Amino acid sequence: MLHALTTASLRRHYLFSKLSEDELNRIGGHAQILDLQAGEQLFMQDTEAHHFYQVHAGQIKLSRLNPDGNEKVIEILNPGETFAEAVMFMQINRYPVTATAVQPSTVYAFKSQVFLDIVRNNNDLCLRLLGDMAMRLRSRMHEIEQLTMKNATYRVVRYFMQELEKAGDEVDELELNIQKQLLASRLSIKPETLSRILGTLRDQGLIRSQGKKITLLDPEALRAYE
Amino acid sequence: MLHALTTASLRRHYLFSKLSEDELNRIGGHAQILDLQAGEQLFMQDTEAHHFYQVHAGQIKLSRLNPDGNEKVIEILNPGETFAEAVMFMQINRYPVTATAVQPSTVYAFKSQVFLDIVRNNNDLCLRLLGDMAMRLRSRMHEIEQLTMKNATYRVVRYFMQELEKAGDEVDELELNIQKQLLASRLSIKPETLSRILGTLRDQGLIRSQGKKITLLDPEALRAYE
Repeated sequence: MLHALTTASLRRHYLFSKLSEDELNRIGGHAQILDLQAGEQLFMQDTEAHHFYQVHAGQIKLSRLNPDGNEKVIEILNPGETFAEAVMFMQINRYPVTATAVQPSTVYAFKSQVFLDIVRNNNDLCLRLLGDMAMRLRSRMHEIEQLTMKNATYRVVRYFMQELEKAGDEVDELELNIQKQLLASRLSIKPETLSRILGTLRDQGLIRSQGKKITLLDPEALRAYE
Repeated sequence: MLHALTTASLRRHYLFSKLSEDELNRIGGHAQILDLQAGEQLFMQDTEAHHFYQVHAGQIKLSRLNPDGNEKVIEILNPGETFAEAVMFMQINRYPVTATAVQPSTVYAFKSQVFLDIVRNNNDLCLRLLGDMAMRLRSRMHEIEQLTMKNATYRVVRYFMQELEKAGDEVDELELNIQKQLLASRLSIKPETLSRILGTLRDQGLIRSQGKKITLLDPEALRAYE
């Protein structure tokens, strides 16, 4: 059974954030705290699934055995992350993976049935969970988009700076003669991503771009992108 | 009303992927196809919310008016993306944003009530949706982790290559004297991310690292990370 302090900290996870105090206590009352040694198995692939888990400390590895008998690591879970909750929601009765502690670890084990009963008897809760996850999913997708863009922008500006260096210190405006497609392929980014980046830099007055000619107008400001 | 062809294509989105043929047809039967001109508003902030939407073509901007009357763009949605579904799930009755077409766009409008009725009367569907979203959410988080790592690895290897270039062409093993914390801060990456990257490069035999001394063992192979 979890302490009041622990159940309060569970609220930070999306699975628990929408539960009432009562519901959370019910789940916490059935929860177990498990200590695992490095290398110890929590559950084995294809065994019956009755719990879902949250890593409290340490690191848990999820893996599968390939038909050839080799282990394939599916993922490594860090504190705060839950696992086997999709197994619970989808009401698959067996774990599709093996869970092993990578290092000495503590995990919380929650009874799937208790959680499912709560969600099943509370349609509004199920909808609120869907809403919360829809928002989280969208915000993650935008984070991915931004990271991709940031990474790509870094590459583009790096390329510009290298060309500037070649031209020497006194130059403060430089014309590059390179086709956008060629530049994209050289920097391993998608042509449409490159177009968006060049568009942004153009809107900010940092470059001018016409055909295959790119003019660097403000190297000082461009450097800020590195 | 949507064509059979369109409803089939809806299945690709997580909101529809778990629906039965019948359920999907019910939703499609109540759906509308809306054509918007560039700059045209789809709905205004604080008006009553009865629909959720999917962008079919074009681009939709979601924005809010700040207290000072300035517009703040919340996000730009591209084909395939849905919006206002969290408003539906959370049963908020008003749109918290204004939706405007950035360019000539086509959107599908779905009646929230029809979708909610289906989910409310089908608990298993609600749970399956939760399971599906839980998996998607986790896979997005891992994608973010990988992108962050890829971006950071690129920066680290770039730095190594620059130092190699300074040392001249004949050098094929180079010792760098830089504290890891300093390197991390110079490359704007988290110290723990740098540690993981150096660990990976070390495991692959590409570098040796001891204290503040990093030895580049295999510049050729390191270059592959760029």
